Amino acid sequence: MKNHLFTTCFVAAGLVSLLTGCAQAPLALQEMGSFHIGGREVSISGKPVGEIVFTAGGVPAKVDPNGIHQVEQMYVQYFVPARRRGRLPLLMWHGGGLTGVTYETTPDGREGWLNYFIRQGWTVYNSDAVERGRSGWAMYPDIFAGEPVFPTKPGPFERFRIGAGAGSYDEDAGKMRLLPGNQFPVAAYDNFIKQNVPRWTSTDGAILRAYAQLVDKLCPCIVLAHSQGGPFAFKAAQAQPEKIKALVLIEPAGGGTMADAAKLRDTAILTLYGDYIGQDARWPKIRANGIGFLDQVRAAGGKPEVIDLPDIGIKGNSHMMMMDKNNLQVADVIQQWLANQGFYR
Amino acid sequence: MKNHLFTTCFVAAGLVSLLTGCAQAPLALQEMGSFHIGGREVSISGKPVGEIVFTAGGVPAKVDPNGIHQVEQMYVQYFVPARRRGRLPLLMWHGGGLTGVTYETTPDGREGWLNYFIRQGWTVYNSDAVERGRSGWAMYPDIFAGEPVFPTKPGPFERFRIGAGAGSYDEDAGKMRLLPGNQFPVAAYDNFIKQNVPRWTSTDGAILRAYAQLVDKLCPCIVLAHSQGGPFAFKAAQAQPEKIKALVLIEPAGGGTMADAAKLRDTAILTLYGDYIGQDARWPKIRANGIGFLDQVRAAGGKPEVIDLPDIGIKGNSHMMMMDKNNLQVADVIQQWLANQGFYR
Repeated sequence: MKNHLFTTCFVAAGLVSLLTGCAQAPLALQEMGSFHIGGREVSISGKPVGEIVFTAGGVPAKVDPNGIHQVEQMYVQYFVPARRRGRLPLLMWHGGGLTGVTYETTPDGREGWLNYFIRQGWTVYNSDAVERGRSGWAMYPDIFAGEPVFPTKPGPFERFRIGAGAGSYDEDAGKMRLLPGNQFPVAAYDNFIKQNVPRWTSTDGAILRAYAQLVDKLCPCIVLAHSQGGPFAFKAAQAQPEKIKALVLIEPAGGGTMADAAKLRDTAILTLYGDYIGQDARWPKIRANGIGFLDQVRAAGGKPEVIDLPDIGIKGNSHMMMMDKNNLQVADVIQQWLANQGFYR
Repeated sequence: MKNHLFTTCFVAAGLVSLLTGCAQAPLALQEMGSFHIGGREVSISGKPVGEIVFTAGGVPAKVDPNGIHQVEQMYVQYFVPARRRGRLPLLMWHGGGLTGVTYETTPDGREGWLNYFIRQGWTVYNSDAVERGRSGWAMYPDIFAGEPVFPTKPGPFERFRIGAGAGSYDEDAGKMRLLPGNQFPVAAYDNFIKQNVPRWTSTDGAILRAYAQLVDKLCPCIVLAHSQGGPFAFKAAQAQPEKIKALVLIEPAGGGTMADAAKLRDTAILTLYGDYIGQDARWPKIRANGIGFLDQVRAAGGKPEVIDLPDIGIKGNSHMMMMDKNNLQVADVIQQWLANQGFYR
């Protein structure tokens, strides 16, 4: 890799003395912007019309909730580096209860994977899934079925292998049982919790429809997906295997459609898992679901690759490895794999 | 201004033949990132504990909505240009029912004010107000009082002086009565509606608290605020007049705290209004509220400036002038004023 300088800088970022110099290398962007894509219009009727004063002392506005609502669109922000070295655009899809912020600055203020991959010369499209973040959300139960799930502070700590499972987070009792050697920047856990947003569990179809439209617009491409984004990425690639040339799955929450596993025969696939899987109550099964699907792809002639990071000497990674202290070391693994696959010049 | 080249390019952007060449000038960023700020923790109790399967075929997770919820934090994305020419950071605060997307790419795909001001050499902090976009939102009525207001498709068309007031938008009847000469890119109105998000009318205090924390962190600074953001900017500056050196108000939804108008005596203030104010049902009063507050600031010795764009020959602007076809011409007015005030080198 010709721009090995950057990679070296990032890997060395743990050494505070080097961080400033490396992080200060300018990001040269040919273009930067955003758009919304997809969604549908829904007609609402029978609601009372209200009069609302939006600003204290302001002028009342008649607000009629009836009529056409635009729902289920998706927000996408994009960055085109001045010097493009990735051969295809890289789409970043986040996990459940989160937004594209996942890939931005880490909770403790270091550069995230968004900046890393732009610096490497990839055109990156970072989106907020339908009903998350800047994509907006819709009336429920009128439009979305059921209630949203709201994040609580202990949830991710206990479920994302930062702490040692259920009951490991209890601030009142002074108990925050961190998994030993964990790379999550736990002192900034409060900042991570601020990134969490409400989410529904009934919107998978809408989310997948918007991703499909994004694929139509931007691909051929590579999709990097985390957690809940994993099954969406598998399914989007199964629907349009000629459009998604490579998948990078970061601890996918599950597989794709089992019966259509053969559709991914020619897709380059890398799946990464972090540490502590074996000792968690839920993760052995979640990993097994992902691996089971990949086995089907392999049985159909595909060559998906799986890396358990501890097996290559990278230890202590939580489910949020793009934020972990060694996040750029993990990014290097992905970058190297993409280069080896011929997607980088 | 030494970088008059950019300004010239942007002003000429109406000439399609020049646009491509100008828009392609790379954006050189010293830094780019994001963070969340502010908010508080709320304890929720007495809710039933559920078991949720987040991903089809996945592993059920016990989800306990009781416990600590992090709420009312604010998302901020920042861009530091490689060559800084603004003497202070520029904070961009959006209007009601919208997010920081307001300042990004326009609904018809042109560069917005975010890129414009970064290109001019300003460090820009673009935020999503509390409970909008990537800031997330909280349970209601448990945490937020009352119901959210959901955007409908005709609302902004009729209220933002794109169309000719109430009743001007009726897609079914084929009626979209545009104000004649309107600069809003109306063919992309559907894309604009996708940017609209639900909002509460009970969260002003929380929004202002987060802005105050942002001011604590980043200022001395300049705040550019639109619509609902206007009163927040006035009040934030009244609370910390030594921190906010200049205010640029784009059709503020109202003024600040009347009794404290004198606190803005030394603040450089520019307020812009677009076209069609006089012929709208609500805008004469909204403008009068803003002007009434500025009159008090003037009476206390301040020198706020007001520009009605049609008076300087810039016609056809809607409430969303940062997206209008002549958006960069309006940005030039702001840039020139900031330079004249000595905030630019």
